Amino acid sequence: MYKLIKIDGGVCAADGFYADGVSAGLKPEKAKDMAFIYSESMCAIASTFTTNKMAAAPIKHFKRKGEFETNFVLINSKNANAMTGEAGIKDIDEILATLPENVSNAVMSSTGVIGVRVPKEKLIAGAKLFDLSKREPNAAAEAIMTTDTFSKQIAYKVELEDGSSFHIGAMAKGAGMINPAMATMLCFITTDAAVSKDEMQKHLNKNVEVTFNAASVDGDTSTNDTVMLLSNAKSGSYNSAAFDEALYNIMRFLAREMVRDGEGATKLVTYEVSGAKDDKEAEIVAKALSNSLLVKTALYGEDPNWGRIASTVGASGAEAYEEKLSISFNDVCVYKQGELYFDAEMEKKASEVMKLSEFTIYCDLGIADGAFTAFGCDLGYEYVKINADYRT
Amino acid sequence: MYKLIKIDGGVCAADGFYADGVSAGLKPEKAKDMAFIYSESMCAIASTFTTNKMAAAPIKHFKRKGEFETNFVLINSKNANAMTGEAGIKDIDEILATLPENVSNAVMSSTGVIGVRVPKEKLIAGAKLFDLSKREPNAAAEAIMTTDTFSKQIAYKVELEDGSSFHIGAMAKGAGMINPAMATMLCFITTDAAVSKDEMQKHLNKNVEVTFNAASVDGDTSTNDTVMLLSNAKSGSYNSAAFDEALYNIMRFLAREMVRDGEGATKLVTYEVSGAKDDKEAEIVAKALSNSLLVKTALYGEDPNWGRIASTVGASGAEAYEEKLSISFNDVCVYKQGELYFDAEMEKKASEVMKLSEFTIYCDLGIADGAFTAFGCDLGYEYVKINADYRT
Repeated sequence: MYKLIKIDGGVCAADGFYADGVSAGLKPEKAKDMAFIYSESMCAIASTFTTNKMAAAPIKHFKRKGEFETNFVLINSKNANAMTGEAGIKDIDEILATLPENVSNAVMSSTGVIGVRVPKEKLIAGAKLFDLSKREPNAAAEAIMTTDTFSKQIAYKVELEDGSSFHIGAMAKGAGMINPAMATMLCFITTDAAVSKDEMQKHLNKNVEVTFNAASVDGDTSTNDTVMLLSNAKSGSYNSAAFDEALYNIMRFLAREMVRDGEGATKLVTYEVSGAKDDKEAEIVAKALSNSLLVKTALYGEDPNWGRIASTVGASGAEAYEEKLSISFNDVCVYKQGELYFDAEMEKKASEVMKLSEFTIYCDLGIADGAFTAFGCDLGYEYVKINADYRT
Repeated sequence: MYKLIKIDGGVCAADGFYADGVSAGLKPEKAKDMAFIYSESMCAIASTFTTNKMAAAPIKHFKRKGEFETNFVLINSKNANAMTGEAGIKDIDEILATLPENVSNAVMSSTGVIGVRVPKEKLIAGAKLFDLSKREPNAAAEAIMTTDTFSKQIAYKVELEDGSSFHIGAMAKGAGMINPAMATMLCFITTDAAVSKDEMQKHLNKNVEVTFNAASVDGDTSTNDTVMLLSNAKSGSYNSAAFDEALYNIMRFLAREMVRDGEGATKLVTYEVSGAKDDKEAEIVAKALSNSLLVKTALYGEDPNWGRIASTVGASGAEAYEEKLSISFNDVCVYKQGELYFDAEMEKKASEVMKLSEFTIYCDLGIADGAFTAFGCDLGYEYVKINADYRT
């Protein structure tokens, strides 16, 4: 047996990790826009990146290095360093070359506007403000935000039966351009667990599928999405099941927080699909629901329009039958296997559920036992406002 | 050689066709909500229907009849007769049974809210108002509208070299729930060309791919989408190439009008994708662009944010390379094969293009010669407004 204890400290919760955020003048009014994560000793790295063919320069830079360990991650917001070609990769080399001597094999990660060269001089000057002895996880989490309205952090201490323990902590940013089908947005996880690189990568791959890849804000997949897990093994302690559970909790929490803070979102909706032909088909349905504009606008309007849910299930491509389908909003069943009993009283009950800031839509396809859970949000005026004029 | 001449008359342009619209009290304030198309003689039918697994009762009713000819189509708006099970199909039988004796094998088609039984008595009373000698194509086109803001009709007279001629005319409704990947929305086409059923179906299938299936408003696929082509062969005249060209023109026009009148849309944007690995990949890219929320909101904001276009191309799944991609807004090239030359002057020029109510975004992938053209619109506050509260 083991125990997971939620603690403070974000990416600095694990032994030997430091982090801070500073202002390099990319965001207006001296808001923090550059962060670092530093480890006293070298770290094994597990990672998943965007599947977007226009992957940003930092991702190409990382992949070109092949197998390596690092003790430093530099992150900037406001500029994605995407569509910047070889020049963008060279910019990273030049920026990283100015870091202190005790930094080794530094990695860079960026988020923001696409198609503009990074302001190299500002970033180099910003990096000079870093104090590697600082443990300011809040400042780091704040510095990586773009259209996020709150920063996202979480950490666990994991106590094992033999009395040993290790820590895992993380920070993430999300908001827009978030979509299933890959490792979404930026997320940095640090741990002092004595876990091997291969083992870490396995845990990461497995959990990303049911957490970040099950989360959707707008169905668009960014050029910069990154989930990075760094271990310095400092605790000397490890247990696979405990590590996996802590990692799942962390990634699920951050994925849900990301959706809750989706651009313009006012509701966090869980789509629990069951009874599908298989898990893959359940996933197709759950993601179709969480991405449907008609469903998302109905959520925003707090309109229990279950017909749109049925229509989206039918359009998803998965096997589905009108007479086998059931739909519920929390515990209010609005359609059951061909029975039309949606009357005024039920509409009132369903409307009450839809007024909640967090609820679950259950969709049972009634075919076999395939299941999947996805996370989505509503889409309202604010999303349009944010995205109609993001650059200017 | 042959000549296509644009004429008035919509679905009544072809010889022997009659149509009208009446109010059955489904829409408020006696707005027209029921239409018919009647032919003096029996018609061969070509059709394409939604791929949605929750296909509405009228579509199931049609498909169950197997092979047949008809001389009558009854259409209602405001209620989709979808998710209504066997009861919904029985409702259709009961309504059609009340039609005049000279009506044979009547077909019904519905559009509107999902999951509510049709108001049978109102529809039966409405059908009694039909005068089968009326040629009122405008009234019919108006009666089938839901959230459309204008009615959509077009007709051609086709003159052949041998002095013979035939006609094709059509009406359509669109607005929301429109998506590539199937025969979208409601469209009724009538012709007096002496074309066989099989030949008609071939022409319809071919043209639906590059017209209605290339049009997107919101990426949602309705339960009721129908394109129906009726021929009474009355002219005795036919030429395959001429028929195909007229049909293509009609379907392309209506598909584009549908997108122009997309819910809340202010712009009609053509996505011309070229240089893809093959036509299929070009289609994937073109449809990804026309469906991307980030692209659609940038269009609404008249923001020449070409980075979102590049990112969407990259996320589409099609083969694509940053250094081979080129992007233009009309004749303003904003990104060319890795060159970053988007300066203030170019931004101004691109912004001018984006202020137009109709323009083309060119995307050359620079790989091979695969090409596809899709039609899309922007997404603004009005879409949210319409869809956040459609039922109530």
